[in-house]
Amino acid sequence: MDQSSKGAKVSELPSSTLPPASDKQAEKPKITIIDYDEQHYHEAEVKEAAECFVFKEKPTVTWINIDGLRQVDILEKLGACYGIHPLVLEDILSDQRPKIEDYDDYIFIVLKMLYYNEEGDEELGDSKIDFDQVSMILGPNFIMSFKEKEVDVFNPLRDRLRTAKGRIRKQGPDYLAYSMIDAVVDHYFVIMEKLGDRFEDLEDAVVAHPEPGILPTIYNLKRDMLFLRKSVWPLREAISKMQRTDSPLVSEATKIYLRDVYDHTIQVIENIETFRDMSASLLETYLSSLSNKLNEVIKVLTIISTIFIPLTFLAGLYGMNFRYMPELESPLGYPAVLILMMMVVAIMMVYFKRKGWF
Amino acid sequence: MDQSSKGAKVSELPSSTLPPASDKQAEKPKITIIDYDEQHYHEAEVKEAAECFVFKEKPTVTWINIDGLRQVDILEKLGACYGIHPLVLEDILSDQRPKIEDYDDYIFIVLKMLYYNEEGDEELGDSKIDFDQVSMILGPNFIMSFKEKEVDVFNPLRDRLRTAKGRIRKQGPDYLAYSMIDAVVDHYFVIMEKLGDRFEDLEDAVVAHPEPGILPTIYNLKRDMLFLRKSVWPLREAISKMQRTDSPLVSEATKIYLRDVYDHTIQVIENIETFRDMSASLLETYLSSLSNKLNEVIKVLTIISTIFIPLTFLAGLYGMNFRYMPELESPLGYPAVLILMMMVVAIMMVYFKRKGWF
Amino acid sequence: MDQSSKGAKVSELPSSTLPPASDKQAEKPKITIIDYDEQHYHEAEVKEAAECFVFKEKPTVTWINIDGLRQVDILEKLGACYGIHPLVLEDILSDQRPKIEDYDDYIFIVLKMLYYNEEGDEELGDSKIDFDQVSMILGPNFIMSFKEKEVDVFNPLRDRLRTAKGRIRKQGPDYLAYSMIDAVVDHYFVIMEKLGDRFEDLEDAVVAHPEPGILPTIYNLKRDMLFLRKSVWPLREAISKMQRTDSPLVSEATKIYLRDVYDHTIQVIENIETFRDMSASLLETYLSSLSNKLNEVIKVLTIISTIFIPLTFLAGLYGMNFRYMPELESPLGYPAVLILMMMVVAIMMVYFKRKGWF
Amino acid sequence: MDQSSKGAKVSELPSSTLPPASDKQAEKPKITIIDYDEQHYHEAEVKEAAECFVFKEKPTVTWINIDGLRQVDILEKLGACYGIHPLVLEDILSDQRPKIEDYDDYIFIVLKMLYYNEEGDEELGDSKIDFDQVSMILGPNFIMSFKEKEVDVFNPLRDRLRTAKGRIRKQGPDYLAYSMIDAVVDHYFVIMEKLGDRFEDLEDAVVAHPEPGILPTIYNLKRDMLFLRKSVWPLREAISKMQRTDSPLVSEATKIYLRDVYDHTIQVIENIETFRDMSASLLETYLSSLSNKLNEVIKVLTIISTIFIPLTFLAGLYGMNFRYMPELESPLGYPAVLILMMMVVAIMMVYFKRKGWF
Amino acid sequence: MDQSSKGAKVSELPSSTLPPASDKQAEKPKITIIDYDEQHYHEAEVKEAAECFVFKEKPTVTWINIDGLRQVDILEKLGACYGIHPLVLEDILSDQRPKIEDYDDYIFIVLKMLYYNEEGDEELGDSKIDFDQVSMILGPNFIMSFKEKEVDVFNPLRDRLRTAKGRIRKQGPDYLAYSMIDAVVDHYFVIMEKLGDRFEDLEDAVVAHPEPGILPTIYNLKRDMLFLRKSVWPLREAISKMQRTDSPLVSEATKIYLRDVYDHTIQVIENIETFRDMSASLLETYLSSLSNKLNEVIKVLTIISTIFIPLTFLAGLYGMNFRYMPELESPLGYPAVLILMMMVVAIMMVYFKRKGWF
Repeated sequence: MDQSSKGAKVSELPSSTLPPASDKQAEKPKITIIDYDEQHYHEAEVKEAAECFVFKEKPTVTWINIDGLRQVDILEKLGACYGIHPLVLEDILSDQRPKIEDYDDYIFIVLKMLYYNEEGDEELGDSKIDFDQVSMILGPNFIMSFKEKEVDVFNPLRDRLRTAKGRIRKQGPDYLAYSMIDAVVDHYFVIMEKLGDRFEDLEDAVVAHPEPGILPTIYNLKRDMLFLRKSVWPLREAISKMQRTDSPLVSEATKIYLRDVYDHTIQVIENIETFRDMSASLLETYLSSLSNKLNEVIKVLTIISTIFIPLTFLAGLYGMNFRYMPELESPLGYPAVLILMMMVVAIMMVYFKRKGWF
Repeated sequence: MDQSSKGAKVSELPSSTLPPASDKQAEKPKITIIDYDEQHYHEAEVKEAAECFVFKEKPTVTWINIDGLRQVDILEKLGACYGIHPLVLEDILSDQRPKIEDYDDYIFIVLKMLYYNEEGDEELGDSKIDFDQVSMILGPNFIMSFKEKEVDVFNPLRDRLRTAKGRIRKQGPDYLAYSMIDAVVDHYFVIMEKLGDRFEDLEDAVVAHPEPGILPTIYNLKRDMLFLRKSVWPLREAISKMQRTDSPLVSEATKIYLRDVYDHTIQVIENIETFRDMSASLLETYLSSLSNKLNEVIKVLTIISTIFIPLTFLAGLYGMNFRYMPELESPLGYPAVLILMMMVVAIMMVYFKRKGWF
Repeated sequence: MDQSSKGAKVSELPSSTLPPASDKQAEKPKITIIDYDEQHYHEAEVKEAAECFVFKEKPTVTWINIDGLRQVDILEKLGACYGIHPLVLEDILSDQRPKIEDYDDYIFIVLKMLYYNEEGDEELGDSKIDFDQVSMILGPNFIMSFKEKEVDVFNPLRDRLRTAKGRIRKQGPDYLAYSMIDAVVDHYFVIMEKLGDRFEDLEDAVVAHPEPGILPTIYNLKRDMLFLRKSVWPLREAISKMQRTDSPLVSEATKIYLRDVYDHTIQVIENIETFRDMSASLLETYLSSLSNKLNEVIKVLTIISTIFIPLTFLAGLYGMNFRYMPELESPLGYPAVLILMMMVVAIMMVYFKRKGWF
Repeated sequence: MDQSSKGAKVSELPSSTLPPASDKQAEKPKITIIDYDEQHYHEAEVKEAAECFVFKEKPTVTWINIDGLRQVDILEKLGACYGIHPLVLEDILSDQRPKIEDYDDYIFIVLKMLYYNEEGDEELGDSKIDFDQVSMILGPNFIMSFKEKEVDVFNPLRDRLRTAKGRIRKQGPDYLAYSMIDAVVDHYFVIMEKLGDRFEDLEDAVVAHPEPGILPTIYNLKRDMLFLRKSVWPLREAISKMQRTDSPLVSEATKIYLRDVYDHTIQVIENIETFRDMSASLLETYLSSLSNKLNEVIKVLTIISTIFIPLTFLAGLYGMNFRYMPELESPLGYPAVLILMMMVVAIMMVYFKRKGWF
Repeated sequence: MDQSSKGAKVSELPSSTLPPASDKQAEKPKITIIDYDEQHYHEAEVKEAAECFVFKEKPTVTWINIDGLRQVDILEKLGACYGIHPLVLEDILSDQRPKIEDYDDYIFIVLKMLYYNEEGDEELGDSKIDFDQVSMILGPNFIMSFKEKEVDVFNPLRDRLRTAKGRIRKQGPDYLAYSMIDAVVDHYFVIMEKLGDRFEDLEDAVVAHPEPGILPTIYNLKRDMLFLRKSVWPLREAISKMQRTDSPLVSEATKIYLRDVYDHTIQVIENIETFRDMSASLLETYLSSLSNKLNEVIKVLTIISTIFIPLTFLAGLYGMNFRYMPELESPLGYPAVLILMMMVVAIMMVYFKRKGWF
């Protein structure tokens, strides 16, 4: 229940004051700066927020990326320099749903980056999907991106910038923002595929050998799906909003690309919904399999009991110790009883056959 | 069923006449006044409604808070002085859904404050969530707030006002209204977290040891969720309405902050919906666990019965008292029967093995 | 199935011709007239529809109430005098969903009055909720109301009119119409409370002693809920339409009051939806309780059987009559078998303990 | 599965070419013409489509009704004469959802006429609801209606036309169209009533004697409901569209009447939805009844087994043939065992009493 | 799980760069060109993309069809010549949801062609529905169509073009586009019919002989339905968008035909939804059938056990070896016990009769 409860970790501090974030480790965050236009490319890792300020007046595109959000003062300095609203800084530090907000001078974007955690133990309460909040501020000549974990989903992007491959170096920061959103959404498909594989395994298992262990697995899968859904649904609305914005920060050419990301988002959502529907069917199928097995077990019990109980009674009957039991004295008594027993068995067999129990 | 039935306690008295509220205890309500602007701060507890009237003409922001709604005349006096519509006064006294209504001269706001009641016994019919209706009237230079219980959710706000911390003293009553709504909504996250914890406990219990006692707990959780939902859903619409209002009572600067509360409300709603989906899954998982256990029990019964019933029959067969039973006379009879019995057991074992019952 | 099938009792006669209503009893309907303005008040029971016509030209507000719709000619006469569309007259006589229709010269309103029938037997097919269709025609200086049963839901209203209490005598017929709608909607809360009580009883019963008799009770409750819902849902839309109407027949002052009724209607709807969700949970809880009980019963059976079946086999084994059974001759045979039996019991006990069956 | 699969019988032929409809019987279709205005009335059955053409230029209202759609050439001739779009002709011949399409010169209307088939065997796969597609083309001075079966749902209409009863002869073809739609919708109420009766029978059966035979009956009822729903839902939208049309073909006076049909359609839809909800409840109730019965059966089994198994063991114990069993020799042995057995029975009884199994 | 996981196969390559599609077989794609107007018709299969370029400037309608998308360079050449946006080319190569996008100079259309695969094994995980993505680019005087498989769904269209049958040769490329969409949608009805047949078989099987093998079949059917739904739902929106477009590429005359396809799409959707509802009912019916069978089995077990267990006890009782058992000595003992046993059986029979177990 890691994800959903995290949703509740919003600070109860006075609003629009930056929370101290004291529970985060005091490790130094990593600040990297990439400054480029069609001809130039400059990449550096800086120690102090102040080092970023020189790029503010330059016409080139500046991408300031901050990994690790433990030191609130860096955020405050950047915010002061670039004129960022305190609510935005607060949102970067707390858990938000994916959204895009237009603050006239800049656009604030929140995304959920999802990772598939292969090592996660397949027990109840242990999700296989990990997430990181990616916040972006898109200005006229800069992008700031903030995330908690230092992961490589933007690395191919950096490579493209370095090698000047594709149109990315020729375009403004809005195209870079698009590329970053695209990278995040494309990674959802990887998650979908992993879930799809788990699904297929479950499908096979449910029909072939429906064991009790399947139950928590289905439950976990459903929970992961719900989490995925909560991360992707609002994104759809957000991208659609960005696509329809009047803001001069997003060019018409980029909007065509946004339409493409929008389509991908809907595709992810549809796949999630299909998975959800199918996981409901899967559970029903599993429960029916259980019922079928129970039926079979009870049938075996009934057949055995129903055949032997009358026989045992007959045997008990002639095991009684009455002095005057004429059958016991007759030499034909024993074979007669044996024949009677066989007849009982035969009658039972015919009965079960008719019932279709074999 | 405390909450839902309270929803039905609307008076059947002639409409737009204040109900006497005779069933409420005749304790004195507590009236506190906070009057402030950027330089001044005045806080007092008054005995009579009339003491509030002097603040009406002052340009400073006045916050009149009334805890306990037993004395209707206080409301009537305030209403007459500030020109409040009788329907508003009636709404303050009866149970309402969260809403925001624009009466031109003032804005009427109804919220549900929720408390988590730790002591509540985890039995059916005993909810852990308690609530209080908070009604607010936002005028050009005043806020009135009404609630039944004397609780401290607005205390941090008062502290901020006293210490002039943050922007709260520099802004008008609309910012104060925002801060109060924000305080209420932020407290929902606390409730969410408590529910999340109960949820996690249940998840563990359902798979590890699915006892019958879990059933009313799940039911209670679901009911709490439904109640929570009923309290939060309409709020979303209300805040959105306040955000889009043309009323001069709400400034543009405050509307940006309202967008933030709106986001939080949606986040709460999404979490509730996720909990609801998961509690449905949880129940299904619990029921499946039950079926699994039942299956196992029946399997044990079937295995034992199926092995011993034929053996018992054999024993009974040779316990018969027929005079002429050749097997009984043979010295090999007893060992032969023992071997036959062992063979029956062996065959059964193989059969069960094949069925996968071990 | 009283309610739903009544929905199908619409005449198949040529449309816009008044159906003869021959199946209704030929009792005389009761016509009462209340004519008032701020100063005057006149109340009378009349025998003939024609007696109403004199009030048509008067500026005072006239309320014509007709209880019992057996004599179609009264309707036809009134309709002809006041210029009512034949479709309206037809609608008054047949079962309609709640609606508000604007016919320029007058507004036609249909409501469902609901009564709670305490005596109703709590068996399947016997609803506890009774209803009556209340039709109203709101004109510039008159209101006509039509209902089948002579009940007292409008009595408090008449008292208010007589005693000139509240603002009712000062306002036009639209305020009277509002008061009548309000009286009907307020009565829904009484029904809700009764349902809430039945609900609480059920909740207690389901967990404490889940008997089969609960089943039809839950089913009945659900059906009543569905009926309630069908009666209230369209009302919401209708009141909203009346609130937004351009018709000069509804004043702006009255529209503020209509907003209040609208809120109440939504509150009723939300309560119904909550009840519906909870009744689904209740049924699930009941079914799980059943499963739990079944589990327990089968567990007892399995424990007893599993312990005694092997013992009985052992007893049977040494009840065999073979001549050569060395154990039988030994003086230690009997105690040895007894000890063996005790060991079997002990092993079983340990096994069940481990399985958690005690 | 007659209905749903019919939905798939749309021709795969080149679009906008009339399908040959070769699978329909080559019987002669029946063409009847009714031509009327307020003074005149003319009714005839004609053999050739060409006989209809003379009415085209007449100012009187002409109603051309065609029963049986086997001869495509009649349609083609009529279409050519009256200037009907080929797509309309194609739609008349294939299965369509209810709709209303405005082709400027005429309005094309498709309805589903439903019949209740009493003789239908209540077995799975055998629906009790039969249907016929009624297509109508409403022009400035004519109506054409096309249906497959020669049924009498329009007979009362013809009678009204003949006898000049009501306003039907005074109005244009749009009023006739309204009357035809009204006749079709009114007949839905008859179907609803029949379904309501089946429903009541089921309700009684489910609680009184829940037999397996109920299962396919519920399933059939649900399927009929789904079919009904599919036929009525789109009609709502269609009538609403006709009501809001700008076309001069539909007069304002008729639109008031359409509002009435619209209300009826919604009433039918609401009843269907209620039935659907209740049939879900009914199935749940049935399944719970089954569980209850199963519980009871297993309880009987458990009580009998649990009492007698220990007794049988005791009897078996003293049936053993050990030479040295001191109890057997004692004259008190037998009565002691009998008393022991009675004690076992008593203890068991107390135990079951406590469990509440009696 | 072939389909859904394919949805995740979107490349993670830099966006707007054509993916190399290396996993597709390097077979030569097949390019066919049909060039026509009302008088002329020319059809050819070409080897190189460049051969298509000559048609670009011709006023005649050119239809370029490419089967097999293994060679990306053909696409790139065509795209460069006709000025196609790189995103469109990327979309053609990757899996997309059905959509229609307006790029001013051309309209980009994506459809899902579905095939019914008769040979598919009816086991879990083996869908019977196969699909192919059909992408179309509709320009002022050309249509390009791209698909993976070389199938014949457009063959009747080609025949109509060749023989100049119907209006197809007289119309522009938009009518051809409509005809292609129509061909695809019409083929959905064939799929629906196949599913309908499978459904009917299942319905019969569920009631007549509910075997465990039915379970995966129902599951498969549901999954196919979900897949079908995912393919058709977005199409509805897309066609509606094309119908309402302002683009000069789609004429008003063609839009009337699009309305027809739109209706067909809705019809398919409604059938799918009905199937979905019915498959839920089917599963419930199946599970109830199972419960019924289980009930019956357990009843047999209970009847047999309940009758014989007491008898066996009696037999065991008089099988005890106590020296002093007076009954054993009496000559009436044996017949008395036999009579007692018969009485027990009779009492049991009456009891079961009353319970209604026979």
